[in-house]
Amino acid sequence: MATDVVILGSTGSIGTQTLEVIEDLEASDQEKFNIIGLGCGTNTDLLVRQINRFHPDTVSVKSSQEKQIVSRKITEEVEIKTGPEGLNKLARMTDSGTVVNALVGFVGLEPTLEAIDNSSRLLLANKESLVVGGPLVYRKLNDSETSLIPIDSEHNAIFQALETGEENEVERLVITASGGPFLSTPLDRIEVASPEEALDHPNWDMGSRITCDSASMVNKGLEVIEAHWLFDLPYEKISAVVHPQSVIHSLVQFRDGSMIGELGEPDMKVPIQYALTYPRRLKNNYDRTDLVNLAKLEFKELEEERYPAFKVVVEAGKSGGNRPAAVNGADEELIDEFLAENIRFGGIARGLELVLEDLEPVENPTLEDLKSTDAWARKKARSLVKEKIIGDR
Amino acid sequence: MATDVVILGSTGSIGTQTLEVIEDLEASDQEKFNIIGLGCGTNTDLLVRQINRFHPDTVSVKSSQEKQIVSRKITEEVEIKTGPEGLNKLARMTDSGTVVNALVGFVGLEPTLEAIDNSSRLLLANKESLVVGGPLVYRKLNDSETSLIPIDSEHNAIFQALETGEENEVERLVITASGGPFLSTPLDRIEVASPEEALDHPNWDMGSRITCDSASMVNKGLEVIEAHWLFDLPYEKISAVVHPQSVIHSLVQFRDGSMIGELGEPDMKVPIQYALTYPRRLKNNYDRTDLVNLAKLEFKELEEERYPAFKVVVEAGKSGGNRPAAVNGADEELIDEFLAENIRFGGIARGLELVLEDLEPVENPTLEDLKSTDAWARKKARSLVKEKIIGDR
Repeated sequence: MATDVVILGSTGSIGTQTLEVIEDLEASDQEKFNIIGLGCGTNTDLLVRQINRFHPDTVSVKSSQEKQIVSRKITEEVEIKTGPEGLNKLARMTDSGTVVNALVGFVGLEPTLEAIDNSSRLLLANKESLVVGGPLVYRKLNDSETSLIPIDSEHNAIFQALETGEENEVERLVITASGGPFLSTPLDRIEVASPEEALDHPNWDMGSRITCDSASMVNKGLEVIEAHWLFDLPYEKISAVVHPQSVIHSLVQFRDGSMIGELGEPDMKVPIQYALTYPRRLKNNYDRTDLVNLAKLEFKELEEERYPAFKVVVEAGKSGGNRPAAVNGADEELIDEFLAENIRFGGIARGLELVLEDLEPVENPTLEDLKSTDAWARKKARSLVKEKIIGDR
Repeated sequence: MATDVVILGSTGSIGTQTLEVIEDLEASDQEKFNIIGLGCGTNTDLLVRQINRFHPDTVSVKSSQEKQIVSRKITEEVEIKTGPEGLNKLARMTDSGTVVNALVGFVGLEPTLEAIDNSSRLLLANKESLVVGGPLVYRKLNDSETSLIPIDSEHNAIFQALETGEENEVERLVITASGGPFLSTPLDRIEVASPEEALDHPNWDMGSRITCDSASMVNKGLEVIEAHWLFDLPYEKISAVVHPQSVIHSLVQFRDGSMIGELGEPDMKVPIQYALTYPRRLKNNYDRTDLVNLAKLEFKELEEERYPAFKVVVEAGKSGGNRPAAVNGADEELIDEFLAENIRFGGIARGLELVLEDLEPVENPTLEDLKSTDAWARKKARSLVKEKIIGDR
């Protein structure tokens, strides 16, 4: 029997790789999928190719402008929705199927909430769903039959390792971090690093926000918050360690002294496939890790002076409420300002701190509260730049 | 409810550590055990202390000589058995409890066979049970409710990693090997290495046979054979890799591209506790792995020229029948000859080859056949030395 699948963010990196995994599993006759919905933003060319290849019932695009382009280019009969409502509709349309939420940004939170109770499995690549909306998502998930499986490599590794024990047997999660491009850069050089330097990630080929976030370790701070919600563990039990080779994707230290880790190539198709077919592991031909020809694996402390934004983010997570939403929104804007060369790299961490200082805290935010916080934090971050409070280059 | 436990080899390294784990778990009020039987050889002093501390119903010692010593020294009412029959009796005495087989050598095979069907769980540290008696053990185990859990660090690591998948999803087991003391020794120096050099193991503190076997990698060859039987996998799916830091105790490469490994300190109490309380992981205070202060982890090919005995042993496993029994028996004698400085270190591998060449193969050996093979191989190995066929120092 084929599994119904909806992919939100189908034209992005995770979305296209999910479709490749699905094609591979079908080509090897191991599994059947029925792509019933695809959601994207403005990449209409790719969406049209995906429609012709996968024949979804419904798609969603950013606005009526993209809708017109798509409807002109296709011969298939497809319902075309638009905007956030279109994505929410897609998230609700599989009853016992799988929703893959590979949207980027805050826009991914509502579809996550919609998919809960309306799917049997939700594969989550959208960071903001948990970073910003953790309490909302988990309140809903606790009363639901829907199971949530993370597909970023760190949390997927922890999810796998947790198969060998129970959550109450966990002593500590160890999230690994490559250390990014500034692992060995003198601290005063990081402060004034260029966008080119920040975007030069050693191991993974990713989008520019996540690559910048790897350089500042905002990314790792957000992953700590995600892990807190995903695995229902207090922050004291979640740590991050620098592992420049990125071979061990993350580890779980159990209370009996055993530590279980998942290792592999930097290939997102592996966690995507695992999440799609869990608990089964089906065969594929993706690259295998050749232990003998690896560089030596090393681990280093995550230095707070080198990555000051990490602590800011984790503290926002610990304090909770609408603080992670503020950090997340502000960070996106600050990265844009940095990439536009309006602020120094060091301005990102300083900007996050200043945004949090001015934030009006809301301890049990609703979705509307979180939207307001997000908007406020973005505006605040921009104003810090405009008013030259965090200085230009 | 307390679990009935019988420990065979209670005065050895694994036996005493098992009792320490049991004391620790009881002291922390996490678990109760009832030590009903203890078996050992000649260490009567320690056995007497164990009797006074754990009050077993039955013990077994090597012979009537040790029985006399023990009965004179104790005031407790304990049944004292002797010899192989005593160990077999102990192996049968727990009906729904746990038997820990930490005997060293061929003598451990019969109690393993006796414990199957007469215990709910058999913790196996006795290598020979599977290396020599694999087919017999598994024939009996397949029709039994008894579950077998390995407690050496490599197989226990694989056992843990396999919790994240099914055996038919395994692409390859990767057994790690420290490389022993001769990891970087020039090949011609290994050939003539002294017992002191062979006994200088970098990571683990073990008995002298197993330490010598680590130097020659006979140990790792035997572990490949054990893994074949334990995890019901063909030899093509079992590999060994040198990992000098011994931090990753072993790994499983699954067919979906994920590799799961267990990491930890070189402390046998961790796998012993896991096996005793499986599938639960209880809390302990044993040392934790401090990733940040580790040496860099490296992996090297297991070079056949450096460790010629490895291939001899694995080939004996692949060919099966009574060949592993011959290798195992001969190896023990050759190590004695080496430690007595009657042969060179290089004579061990050569001796194993010559014993196998002369062996009369039995393809489906009975227990009696295996005993004959063991006796024949020992005699043959001694004669190779006596007749100076493998040369003296």
